[in-house]
Formats: sequence, structure tokens, C-alpha cells
Amino acid sequence: MAKIAVLLADEFEDSEYTQPVGELKKAGHEVEVLGVEKGKKLKGKQGDAEVKTDAAVTSRKAQDYAALLIPGGHSPDALRIDEGMVQFVRDFADTGRPIAAICHGPQLLIEAEVVRGRTMTSWPSVRTDLKNAGATVVDKEVCEDAQFITSRKPADLKAFSAALLEKL
Amino acid sequence: MAKIAVLLADEFEDSEYTQPVGELKKAGHEVEVLGVEKGKKLKGKQGDAEVKTDAAVTSRKAQDYAALLIPGGHSPDALRIDEGMVQFVRDFADTGRPIAAICHGPQLLIEAEVVRGRTMTSWPSVRTDLKNAGATVVDKEVCEDAQFITSRKPADLKAFSAALLEKL
Repeated sequence: MAKIAVLLADEFEDSEYTQPVGELKKAGHEVEVLGVEKGKKLKGKQGDAEVKTDAAVTSRKAQDYAALLIPGGHSPDALRIDEGMVQFVRDFADTGRPIAAICHGPQLLIEAEVVRGRTMTSWPSVRTDLKNAGATVVDKEVCEDAQFITSRKPADLKAFSAALLEKL
Repeated sequence: MAKIAVLLADEFEDSEYTQPVGELKKAGHEVEVLGVEKGKKLKGKQGDAEVKTDAAVTSRKAQDYAALLIPGGHSPDALRIDEGMVQFVRDFADTGRPIAAICHGPQLLIEAEVVRGRTMTSWPSVRTDLKNAGATVVDKEVCEDAQFITSRKPADLKAFSAALLEKL
């Protein structure tokens, strides 16, 4: 039984939230959705998923969670301009616990300045930014380096979620 | 009378297309919308604007245009993963002619590796990526450095379009 924080804003990639969260809950874990504000209704960009944030990220402490999940879509582009969100990611990275980011998710890791020297993958549009931030970029279904689990796209979700579950 | 190329994909920021294009046409200039494909219908993310691409970017030569316009929204994130599009931006940068990019537009300039040593502005979420790519980032309505004109958001459009018109 672990508690996992999902970092989410509007226009997330629907399946990148629903699939891993479904797997985590099926395995008996607890999931909390942290946003910039508490109780905000967020919509997936495909129109398939609607989620209400459980708490504002600034009301939570990184050490209270066993892992971080960062879905992609347009959500990370919005989250990265919120200082509290970026600080939470930095604090969580300091715990050394698993951070799973898929698609555009690594944009938030770039903003938190935690990618230098790490090997990671992402959606193709994020790769030059990852490289420029000091990461080594690979093109594979799932990439694991230290605490980081990264994947490219919805088609990678099975391997991505399995890698996260394995770490809990 | 100049010919200006607009680089566009789906979910562009509506006003960042319509406002400058309106100003350019009013001043008697010709505008061509270049996309990844010819004749593709593109929609603005606000649902206010619909545009059909005039040509595929790979069918056009950079030197046939007097200036480049790169609206923001989610469009630049899509354009930057197209090799032909990125090559066109690189070729155009070599001409030394004006490149006007607003909001997320500079993402395409990062991908084309033309921002190093330049002073630029952008939407806040793009600024860390600009810095990591070697640009000096400022927070102002419109920033001009050599051939580059950059702005932050729709509220800057008046100054942005005026700066582009001034250069033609």
C-alpha cells in the first residue's frame, strides 16, 4: 500500500492519467491528484477523462508520497509555470523516490532542473529541450535511470505502468 | 508589397494568427500559410479561427519570402517534430530576414538551433528551454535582436505586429 501523487492540469493526455492510475489502484495503492488549486475540475484533451484535484500542491509535502506520476498532453506545459508545483517536484526528487513521467511529462522535470546527467525518453517534441537541459535522450518504450521512469506516448503505457509498479 | 510565410499547425493560438495576418494584409502584403501538408484545415485552440494551409513547407524555398511569422498555442510543439519544417526555419534564418515568433513560437526556433546568443522573450513555459538553448531571456512586450522579433502572449500583439511591419 503506497500513496502516489499525480501532478495534473487541464488538457492532460487522457489515457496517460487513466491507465496508470487504474493499474495503481488495482494493485491496492492510493492515488492523490495534486493541482495548482484544490477541487478544480480538469478535462483530458481527448474529452475522455474528467478529474477533480484532491489538493493544491502547496498544501502537501513531498515526503508524504511514495512516488510521483506526471502524465503528458498539455498539462505539464501549464504546471511548469507554477512555482509551487516546480518546488514540489524539486523536493520530491530530493527524496530519491520514483518519478514516472510520460510524453510531455519531462517538461516539468526540466523546469525543476533535475534532468542533468540522467538518461531519459519523452515525446519527440520535448527531446531537444531535454538534451539542452543536460539529459541523455533515448528513444525507447520505457527508460529507467536512478529514480526516473520515462516513456514516450500512450502506446508505451503498459511498460510504463509496469515499471512504476515494480518500484513500489 | 512583401510575401510573408506563416508556419502553422492545429491548435494555434487564434488571435496570434488572425491579428498579425490582418495587419499584414491591411498593409498590402501577401501571406502564405505553410504547413506540414498542403490544403490541410487547421483549427485554432479557442475555436475562433479556421485556416487552410496554402502549401506544404517542403514545396517552398525560404528565399521566396520576406519574413516568417510563427504564431503560438500548441502549433509550434507539433511543427518542431517535422524535419522539413525545422529545415525551412534554419534556411530562413540564414537569409537574415525578419522572423517574428510569439508565445510558444520560439519552440520552433529552439528546434532549428538558431537562438544561441540571441536575446528573446516568449510565453513563460518556454523560457527555461530558451535559456538552456543558449538564449538570453527577457520579459517584455516585444523584444528585437538582429532578425528576431519575439513577444509573450496575445496581449502583446499590437506591439508585435507593429515591430514586424516596421521591418518590412
